[in-house]
Amino acid sequence: MIRPILFTCFLFICFTRSAHAQAPTFTEVEPGIFKAIIGKPDSFNLLNAAGAIPYHAGLVEMGKAIFPLTKADISANVIDGKTYLRFPLDKTEQLYGFGLNFQTVYQRGKILTLHVDNYAGKDNGRTHAPTPFYISSKGYGVFINCARYITVYAGTAVRVDSKTPAQVQDRNTDKNWKSHPYSDAVEMLIPAEGAEIYIFAGPTPMDAIRRYNLLNGGGCLPPRWGLGFTQRVQRLTDAAGVAAEAKAFEDKGYPLDFIGLEPGWQSKSYPCTFDWDKTRFPDPKAFVQDMLKKNIRLNLWTNPYISPEASISKSILPYTASHTVWNGLVADITLPKARDIFFTQLESGKVDIGISGYKMDEVDGGDGYLWPDVATFSSGHTAEQMRQTYGLMMQRYVTELYHKRNQRTYGLVRASNGGGSSLPYVIYNDYYNHQDFITALINSGFAGVLWTPEVRASKTSEEWLRRFQSNIFSPMAMINAWSSGTKPWTFPDVAEQVKQLANLRMQMMPYWYSEFAKYHFQGIPPFRAMNLEPGFNNTEAIKQVKTKTNLEENPYEESISKEIKDQYMAGEYLLVAPLFTGQTSRTVILPKGKWFDFYTGKYAGDGEVITVTPGLDKIPVYVKDGGIIPMMPALLHAPKAGQQVNLEIRYYGDKPGTYNLYDDDGETFNYEKGDYSFRQIKVTKQNGKLTGTISNPDPGKPNSFKNITFKMMTE
Amino acid sequence: MIRPILFTCFLFICFTRSAHAQAPTFTEVEPGIFKAIIGKPDSFNLLNAAGAIPYHAGLVEMGKAIFPLTKADISANVIDGKTYLRFPLDKTEQLYGFGLNFQTVYQRGKILTLHVDNYAGKDNGRTHAPTPFYISSKGYGVFINCARYITVYAGTAVRVDSKTPAQVQDRNTDKNWKSHPYSDAVEMLIPAEGAEIYIFAGPTPMDAIRRYNLLNGGGCLPPRWGLGFTQRVQRLTDAAGVAAEAKAFEDKGYPLDFIGLEPGWQSKSYPCTFDWDKTRFPDPKAFVQDMLKKNIRLNLWTNPYISPEASISKSILPYTASHTVWNGLVADITLPKARDIFFTQLESGKVDIGISGYKMDEVDGGDGYLWPDVATFSSGHTAEQMRQTYGLMMQRYVTELYHKRNQRTYGLVRASNGGGSSLPYVIYNDYYNHQDFITALINSGFAGVLWTPEVRASKTSEEWLRRFQSNIFSPMAMINAWSSGTKPWTFPDVAEQVKQLANLRMQMMPYWYSEFAKYHFQGIPPFRAMNLEPGFNNTEAIKQVKTKTNLEENPYEESISKEIKDQYMAGEYLLVAPLFTGQTSRTVILPKGKWFDFYTGKYAGDGEVITVTPGLDKIPVYVKDGGIIPMMPALLHAPKAGQQVNLEIRYYGDKPGTYNLYDDDGETFNYEKGDYSFRQIKVTKQNGKLTGTISNPDPGKPNSFKNITFKMMTE
Repeated sequence: MIRPILFTCFLFICFTRSAHAQAPTFTEVEPGIFKAIIGKPDSFNLLNAAGAIPYHAGLVEMGKAIFPLTKADISANVIDGKTYLRFPLDKTEQLYGFGLNFQTVYQRGKILTLHVDNYAGKDNGRTHAPTPFYISSKGYGVFINCARYITVYAGTAVRVDSKTPAQVQDRNTDKNWKSHPYSDAVEMLIPAEGAEIYIFAGPTPMDAIRRYNLLNGGGCLPPRWGLGFTQRVQRLTDAAGVAAEAKAFEDKGYPLDFIGLEPGWQSKSYPCTFDWDKTRFPDPKAFVQDMLKKNIRLNLWTNPYISPEASISKSILPYTASHTVWNGLVADITLPKARDIFFTQLESGKVDIGISGYKMDEVDGGDGYLWPDVATFSSGHTAEQMRQTYGLMMQRYVTELYHKRNQRTYGLVRASNGGGSSLPYVIYNDYYNHQDFITALINSGFAGVLWTPEVRASKTSEEWLRRFQSNIFSPMAMINAWSSGTKPWTFPDVAEQVKQLANLRMQMMPYWYSEFAKYHFQGIPPFRAMNLEPGFNNTEAIKQVKTKTNLEENPYEESISKEIKDQYMAGEYLLVAPLFTGQTSRTVILPKGKWFDFYTGKYAGDGEVITVTPGLDKIPVYVKDGGIIPMMPALLHAPKAGQQVNLEIRYYGDKPGTYNLYDDDGETFNYEKGDYSFRQIKVTKQNGKLTGTISNPDPGKPNSFKNITFKMMTE
Repeated sequence: MIRPILFTCFLFICFTRSAHAQAPTFTEVEPGIFKAIIGKPDSFNLLNAAGAIPYHAGLVEMGKAIFPLTKADISANVIDGKTYLRFPLDKTEQLYGFGLNFQTVYQRGKILTLHVDNYAGKDNGRTHAPTPFYISSKGYGVFINCARYITVYAGTAVRVDSKTPAQVQDRNTDKNWKSHPYSDAVEMLIPAEGAEIYIFAGPTPMDAIRRYNLLNGGGCLPPRWGLGFTQRVQRLTDAAGVAAEAKAFEDKGYPLDFIGLEPGWQSKSYPCTFDWDKTRFPDPKAFVQDMLKKNIRLNLWTNPYISPEASISKSILPYTASHTVWNGLVADITLPKARDIFFTQLESGKVDIGISGYKMDEVDGGDGYLWPDVATFSSGHTAEQMRQTYGLMMQRYVTELYHKRNQRTYGLVRASNGGGSSLPYVIYNDYYNHQDFITALINSGFAGVLWTPEVRASKTSEEWLRRFQSNIFSPMAMINAWSSGTKPWTFPDVAEQVKQLANLRMQMMPYWYSEFAKYHFQGIPPFRAMNLEPGFNNTEAIKQVKTKTNLEENPYEESISKEIKDQYMAGEYLLVAPLFTGQTSRTVILPKGKWFDFYTGKYAGDGEVITVTPGLDKIPVYVKDGGIIPMMPALLHAPKAGQQVNLEIRYYGDKPGTYNLYDDDGETFNYEKGDYSFRQIKVTKQNGKLTGTISNPDPGKPNSFKNITFKMMTE
């Protein structure tokens, strides 16, 4: 990568001589989105790696908004080849975001180095989607569009020149001495000579998130079948085994929309050939078509590391990295030539014979096997830049294979990053802590990504059922049996309950699909933190709980904030409060406003903490007052394009209710050309009687619903 | 920091255009030490931060040696402002070093980012002394003289163009598939536009370590009193309390050479005033002098963070960092003006009234409180450079205060780095795992630092005694009671055993002192790994033990090497094998050659694994065949300059024995002017009878010994 020398020198003089940080100049690039360019940013960044194109219409609809911070309180500087950024922070502000964290929701007080990696058990910035985007409880967002390892001091660093200095204490005598004094700023260090900053206006934190997602192009809209149930078979299952597994689902009456094939579909894996194993799959095309006839789509596992025995290994060699992964070549997919060879290989005999999507593994790391940071790529992009974007680019270019066929895909990926909201992939990983999986689901909504708390195996039927319960209230309802070979009915004593849960997933498809449409058109994350819900009492966010540690082992006393990370919002109206193995009851925080039991419609509470003992079979779910949940029959497969299903519109509470029901063909990208509709559902009370109405289908637009009925759950 | 622009541009063209890595040019800068300059290294580096001046005479004595690697196999390149280094690695090589690791001795297969930090429970490069120095079992060493966070791939990265490529495997069918293929190189990424590389010749790994330490100026030589016993009192103890504590040691007959005062000696701490607290210490000078009369020296705790209420806070402000630590200013001690103010404050009313040394806390981190990487320093040095060197510089400049008084010091510090071998400080930390403390003691010998497995508190008397046993076979025999207030006699049922151990420490002073002299004059670490001992069977170093992990939680099977990290060499002749709480017996690996019990002189074994059950009172210690251990009476305080003590020379085994007994005044730097001697001790067997001889003291040189007797332990 040859940088312009004169300009480099010029910048060098400007920025390293400068003793004082500069206040950056912001331009409103979209309504409520303000951009500043600091120094000389890398030309390669997250937004262009992702191919993100702002969804302008959605941003216009949100309307204009004023710059949400005091500009003079933002500073930026380039020193010694690195970019130094500072953003202000009030005493009472809480911060969310900084990527897909697994154990914490509140990020104030954290020090993170944002780095794409397999999650290793600690929220330190290394995660599958370390999106450099944070949201303030004050109602604004900040995004750094840079594909480097950014170090973030989220309200920890204290400056000599702070206008609101922290209190000096004497540890000799002050029992309240704090090891972390108050900090009035978020500071960042970017190992590059510049960066693009985006500030997102509110007024609410949700508005800032919406603007961020819309800048990314809006959230992804999966095909309808993507929201059904998926099973990943054991890794060496052959064609007959897959067919048998599909038949077992059908025979036993468990819904199933797509099956994932794990490494055994390839002739060799780790590194990969990307060619069918002909002993296990002698006629892939016939097999795929046969499965499609049975309404079962197939998704293929792969990692991108190219075996020397792959048919493309010779042709792609000039466009690969200096280093291998498991002795496999790493294509430099920033190069058009490499992309052409690599993605044609993923298309040919796979996408073009009817494969519905991919699961793209190991694009995140572990350092132990991934290309090292000393690797070089033919394009001149650094190993660091490639690490931060490989998952994004894999999603983008596979999606493009489908887009040119006007066919939606929905798959899995183990790495993403800023810019990727519109890419139809769900993140998963090798970690397997049920509680932390829920925290990740919460944080996915702050990071512009989707996350599945997948079910793999369990020690007990209780654990199996509890995991399954939260799994069906997530972006992808899935058993990943690549290693275990488990099935939904693996634990006979809870097999019926699991079936009912899978059926509920199918019944709720109109709701899930509409909520994803709102993710796409309005940027509202379908799964998200309670903290984004109006009326949620988050005063505990700023309360610091002092914990006394063992001074012999750790002499610095720590303060922590109490945070809610075991309940979440699913779509517009649902509050989900999972139970975990060993729990028979739990507390649920209900935000202000009335809440109703999802299953019975009964009043549950209003702005209070309730304790529930739901039994093993139920996951507590609550509906907001006026909530409307459109549901369909529990089919075994998602409705196909043109297929009409009955619609039961459930209504909860006593406030007037409204809902925008989304509809399109469910399979193609025709919605991009306007071939979709939102139908208005209303429930009103007149003379003590509830009446439900729904607007007519748009003429000429897809209409997926017939026999529409209302069910007033709270009467 | 203004860099020469034209040269920057020139380098830029040279290195970023270059597609092929360069083989660096090496110059022999000292016998057996070869240096290469890559790109444009920072002018500020580890060796000049430490003020290291090679001990040329010692290096000349070691003699010339050929370059130990194939030069063409070393490559270096500067790309995108970073330096890429590669060194070759054979299939059978094991690697040691990369700083003060706590859990592992073998470093092959590691990925580390060398970063000064408080140890946080994982060997990932973040430690108190992340010395960028590694040693190969093939008998050479590599040192990167750079004060940046260096990322190291110690035999993990695999290149496409490797001359010895790893085997490609198919995970679908190969049960021996490995997640970490064979790598033929150590690779490093340095976030700077260049670096200085040093290669140290062997032929043995010990030779490479010696050359490294001698390049640093030789190991430190503590004063004799530094090798006695030290007690750190509870943090708010006042002058009367300290005197009472010293008297209790005397009354009970426990040896004591220096007492450490913790934060309470200062009027305020965290941040610090560096001024005596006049309520607890109304007359510091009289107090210190009174203690000195009782043969008790005083060591002062401090961290370097300057309270706004410190007398120097106004004058030093212009020379401080942009950020504070606990609201304390951070002096930019790379600036002469800042040093003048800061170290004069540490000298005045402290060093100049008789304080013997400092304990310098929190110069390492945690990130949670330290200056952030976005801090700037008036000198233009980056926060990263300051982080990597602050501990080194604190040691250096405090040592200089003593050097100009011709008075040796011996203190404690929580951070060091490459270049610091000659600085008379022992590293300690907040971690408190006894086993890992021993691993750190082993690794200290690879890192050019000293480490104390200090005793703080214990849950049981067994733990107390076990910790104490290994503590007295370490560079600093210490109870650190800053928080607990423990005393050697805190557990009455083992108080007598503790006293005997403290007495043993005093008796062995001639041995410890001579071994430190060998550290200084010959670069031989006094405490070190078994792997450096001739005849130690380390074939297990290259054996990989495959461990099957739970595939549901971690699908990558790991291989590990079996390593010996619970026994170590202490000085020329002793093998120490500590027991830990709960153990009643253990195995000890005796290298080839006969070994004898330290306490009884009995034959213990030869090149074999023995199992010992020593009882609670004993720590197993073995002496090499022909081993000579010079011992003195168990005084309560170390001998003063000019004081003569009786010497009992113990001899073990039946091979002819030799020993170089070091002598000097024990307190000043006169040894630098040649005012020292090594006296030759020999034990020979003639007609079945052992005879011991010792050379006469050098005329005009200090002579600390009278009434020299021999004790033949094995007869």
